[in-house]
Amino acid sequence: MSTDSDDTPDTEVAREKLIDLAAEFYDQFAEGDVPTMTIPTRTKSNIEYDEDKDVWVYGDRTSTRSAKTVSGAEKLLKATYTIDFLARQLDEDRSSTLRELYYLSESWDVEEAQFNSQDESNDLVEDLEIVSDVTREDFHMRPEESGATIMGPLKLREQTRRGEREIHCQKDVGEGGYQIPNNPDTIEFLENDADFVLCVETGGMRDRLVENGFDEEYNVIVVHLKGQPARATRRITKRLHDELDLPVVVFTDGDPWSYRIYGSVAYGSIKSAHLSEYLATPAAQFVGIRPEDIVEYDLPTDPLSDSDINALESELEDPRFQTEFWKEQIELQLDIGKKAEQQALASRGLDFVTDTYLPERLSEMDVI
Amino acid sequence: MSTDSDDTPDTEVAREKLIDLAAEFYDQFAEGDVPTMTIPTRTKSNIEYDEDKDVWVYGDRTSTRSAKTVSGAEKLLKATYTIDFLARQLDEDRSSTLRELYYLSESWDVEEAQFNSQDESNDLVEDLEIVSDVTREDFHMRPEESGATIMGPLKLREQTRRGEREIHCQKDVGEGGYQIPNNPDTIEFLENDADFVLCVETGGMRDRLVENGFDEEYNVIVVHLKGQPARATRRITKRLHDELDLPVVVFTDGDPWSYRIYGSVAYGSIKSAHLSEYLATPAAQFVGIRPEDIVEYDLPTDPLSDSDINALESELEDPRFQTEFWKEQIELQLDIGKKAEQQALASRGLDFVTDTYLPERLSEMDVI
Repeated sequence: MSTDSDDTPDTEVAREKLIDLAAEFYDQFAEGDVPTMTIPTRTKSNIEYDEDKDVWVYGDRTSTRSAKTVSGAEKLLKATYTIDFLARQLDEDRSSTLRELYYLSESWDVEEAQFNSQDESNDLVEDLEIVSDVTREDFHMRPEESGATIMGPLKLREQTRRGEREIHCQKDVGEGGYQIPNNPDTIEFLENDADFVLCVETGGMRDRLVENGFDEEYNVIVVHLKGQPARATRRITKRLHDELDLPVVVFTDGDPWSYRIYGSVAYGSIKSAHLSEYLATPAAQFVGIRPEDIVEYDLPTDPLSDSDINALESELEDPRFQTEFWKEQIELQLDIGKKAEQQALASRGLDFVTDTYLPERLSEMDVI
Repeated sequence: MSTDSDDTPDTEVAREKLIDLAAEFYDQFAEGDVPTMTIPTRTKSNIEYDEDKDVWVYGDRTSTRSAKTVSGAEKLLKATYTIDFLARQLDEDRSSTLRELYYLSESWDVEEAQFNSQDESNDLVEDLEIVSDVTREDFHMRPEESGATIMGPLKLREQTRRGEREIHCQKDVGEGGYQIPNNPDTIEFLENDADFVLCVETGGMRDRLVENGFDEEYNVIVVHLKGQPARATRRITKRLHDELDLPVVVFTDGDPWSYRIYGSVAYGSIKSAHLSEYLATPAAQFVGIRPEDIVEYDLPTDPLSDSDINALESELEDPRFQTEFWKEQIELQLDIGKKAEQQALASRGLDFVTDTYLPERLSEMDVI
């Protein structure tokens, strides 16, 4: 197997940072101290909104894992075995999934180092991300599924383990588009003729935009979010914004769960607050479906369920939604008691979304 | 927008068959008869196993929709409006999703023709498939999501609405692979250097095989099933088998739900019995995870839940699983009370699946 991406600086940096962590335990032992590892407390109460960066980050509270107790010592032992595995994985330019790590631990020679559940190994990998300031992708840990796609006027180079591939995301792909790899930092953007990026929640709407040639007519890079977007999808969206200086617009269903999808693209999530700077695109704008669209375009709707209402009310308290715009929209939605899907726009004809809705709205937003 | 695929014979045939259905209503009116539509009864009791073709098909029982009653007349009215929409869609070389059809009906001028729920429009489209003997894909109805991928020594030509694309599913794609389009009958197989097709349930295992270069070493076309496979995935699997004369092997988790995934690739499902001949690959073989693997390789397991046990017991009664092999495996599994995931093979090391497990098993099965 080719190892073209071996010894790239990122891989080397990640490996060194991991080894440094283990070396710290070693030094603590050598100095006669009880080994410890200190990490930010990862609870909702220790999440802060960073006004400057516009993203969620961890607060100042920390907790310490110490080998003073048996359970603390076991945690550090597991960390050491995991660091050893990851360092070797990086050395050999391999990768693995979180689930494989969990199963693989069964082959470790010390039983106390083996994980009792996948939650335990997942949490440990997140701890290592936080402490080492290296992302899971740079450890070469893959998710179980990614699967989102890109279609638009963008030519890129992907560094695969079989060599480089240059792919134009309209001319060199089928109607399904370009499949985003698990680690999109293997991608280099070569050329583009794009005016903005449109992130789309559902596959049905993604296919509609592509069929109607919206990406060609408006020079749009269409990113399929596939519901709550995977890390790879959020990462490439951020890179498209930062590196190509393209506006990012998010297009979802009109319900509280979809507003959270927008929130996770724009601001990051509580679960991955340590990665907000790596994954979030604070400049991302929300195009719709907005509650005002339900009224203005008389869209087919479903009534809000109790859990929808609760979710909307909790969004009214959510720092990410403390703007005039969101307050108005959420209060309007609670008032009318209705939600609508992206594809409800089809009630005005299959071309309404690309001929009328998006052009009108994007021009109001100064995107086109 | 280009309309290269306009006027292909398939599109024309589909359009004519739809028009014929509507013409039948017209003739019934003209002769002074009450219009009716007769379709096979679509219940579990009217499903038969076709021994010759090795697939599920509908039995002889039929039910008749007649305009004698208001509700029957409304059903036929909806069918007529839908036929009109589909015929125009084919004429214009457009496509749409089932959900768009449901919403679009709100724009129809006669209120009684509009659908009350998406179940109603979905069922009607299936009825039209059965009566016209044309598949949904040939009506240009897309699913909401497809998203499975292919990686392997296969060069194909996809007819997109922007022209033809020639893609080699190893050399011209990134690590994510080639994205199967919604209607894989737009694909023509050009060249291949493949010895067999391996359909893989989970993304984690698909990525493992690709990382380990299994597709290159054994000349395998790796098809990612993504859990219960979409119609597009089953269709292309069948075409790879039929047209390229390649053995098809299915590799899933070792639990009753995964055996059903194998069953749907091999024999079709009850829900789409009218499509078994179009979607099913009766010659597909099951490689594992088998209950005997749990014992033989001492894999990490989870205990069977009550619903697992019920599902296994119902598979013992299922005509699709009436073979010596499946009886033995299912009885063994009920006996040991355990299930295992594909990735549990990682407990023997990350290369065990590609260096040992698959080569041993596939050679026993005479596939390699």
